[in-house]
Amino acid sequence: MALTIGDAVPDFVAASTKGEIRFHKFLDDGPGWTMLFSHPRDFTPVCTTELGEFARHKSAFDALGVQLVALSCDTASDHAEWCKDIEAFKGAPVDFAIIDDSDRTLATRFRMLDPDEKDESKLPVPVRSVFFIGPDKRVRATICYPPLVGRNVPELLRVIRALQLGDAHPVATPVNWQPGDRVMIQPSLSDEEAAARFPGFTKHEVPSGKGYIRMTDDPS
Amino acid sequence: MALTIGDAVPDFVAASTKGEIRFHKFLDDGPGWTMLFSHPRDFTPVCTTELGEFARHKSAFDALGVQLVALSCDTASDHAEWCKDIEAFKGAPVDFAIIDDSDRTLATRFRMLDPDEKDESKLPVPVRSVFFIGPDKRVRATICYPPLVGRNVPELLRVIRALQLGDAHPVATPVNWQPGDRVMIQPSLSDEEAAARFPGFTKHEVPSGKGYIRMTDDPS
Repeated sequence: MALTIGDAVPDFVAASTKGEIRFHKFLDDGPGWTMLFSHPRDFTPVCTTELGEFARHKSAFDALGVQLVALSCDTASDHAEWCKDIEAFKGAPVDFAIIDDSDRTLATRFRMLDPDEKDESKLPVPVRSVFFIGPDKRVRATICYPPLVGRNVPELLRVIRALQLGDAHPVATPVNWQPGDRVMIQPSLSDEEAAARFPGFTKHEVPSGKGYIRMTDDPS
Repeated sequence: MALTIGDAVPDFVAASTKGEIRFHKFLDDGPGWTMLFSHPRDFTPVCTTELGEFARHKSAFDALGVQLVALSCDTASDHAEWCKDIEAFKGAPVDFAIIDDSDRTLATRFRMLDPDEKDESKLPVPVRSVFFIGPDKRVRATICYPPLVGRNVPELLRVIRALQLGDAHPVATPVNWQPGDRVMIQPSLSDEEAAARFPGFTKHEVPSGKGYIRMTDDPS
């Protein structure tokens, strides 16, 4: 099945560049949040830029309590060799696990395989999936780009910050939100509750008169 | 089923603010690309910022040959009333169709419903799904954010530009790519082919000696 928002992440056991991973234990032992992401193939150009950029920004993910774990259908020994290329190209060591899904068990189970892109053995390769997994082991958001489109690390960090903000406060993030921007007060709060929690919030009048557009400063 | 990369988009018939939509005909009659996106609920804060921002940037999507179509589980008459709020708040008319999926047929069929978020009748509401649909009526990329996290219009436009660039030229876009940035030459091209097609491309040496990191200027 394709994993989507709200799904409990199944447990699994997999080899990786950091040894065997028992996924639920890995989640429990982590800092709270986990970002699991697949890439099509080791020793390919876009993937090298991506994993290098994740490596360069690992401290930003660490600061948000997010552990990283990559996955592709290459072997752990290929991953390890490839990491030397990544570090040489991007200047940062790959200090997170890369899962060895060379038998395609996980990529098949979670519908990550691209039906068009094949490796040199004519086997399908994964797309660029991202699963944002919360402390409750459930999928909180997903992104899925094809092999030709590299991901955007600032967008990934933006999504994590927005997820965490909505968990910590009764607010939600508007379109194009960036940390520090004003946020929307969740509809579940009455105006009285909003005033107590967010003094000085602003309410925008709209033709329906429903008064649901209420904004306040980023409370984080 | 959850729609994912490579899936052919099924045909369906739905009511909308622009009249009945027969989806395959709608795709055929459009400019080539279609972005179908769901929102949780009319008359709610984040959705209003999103649809308003899509409305404000409609000319940018038009310029890329992308038609927009929204969907939620509200009625077409609610959509129409809500559009007055959106225009008042964001200053741009909502000049694209919003599908009336008030019986939740499509949201259920395509697994867009959030298991946690409910409306006032305790019925589930959709998440913030985005399906990038190519001229071949297949899903090319997806994004799925929860109700509390608004989407990012610059990222949506970035993905469309990257998809179109990879279709038009044998290149792929590296991590964090923005239009005008250098791109990666696809591994399917030999160095000779790359030199003919992209004179002056640069090849980065890496420890594996595999020579797969080859960059060139944005050819668009």
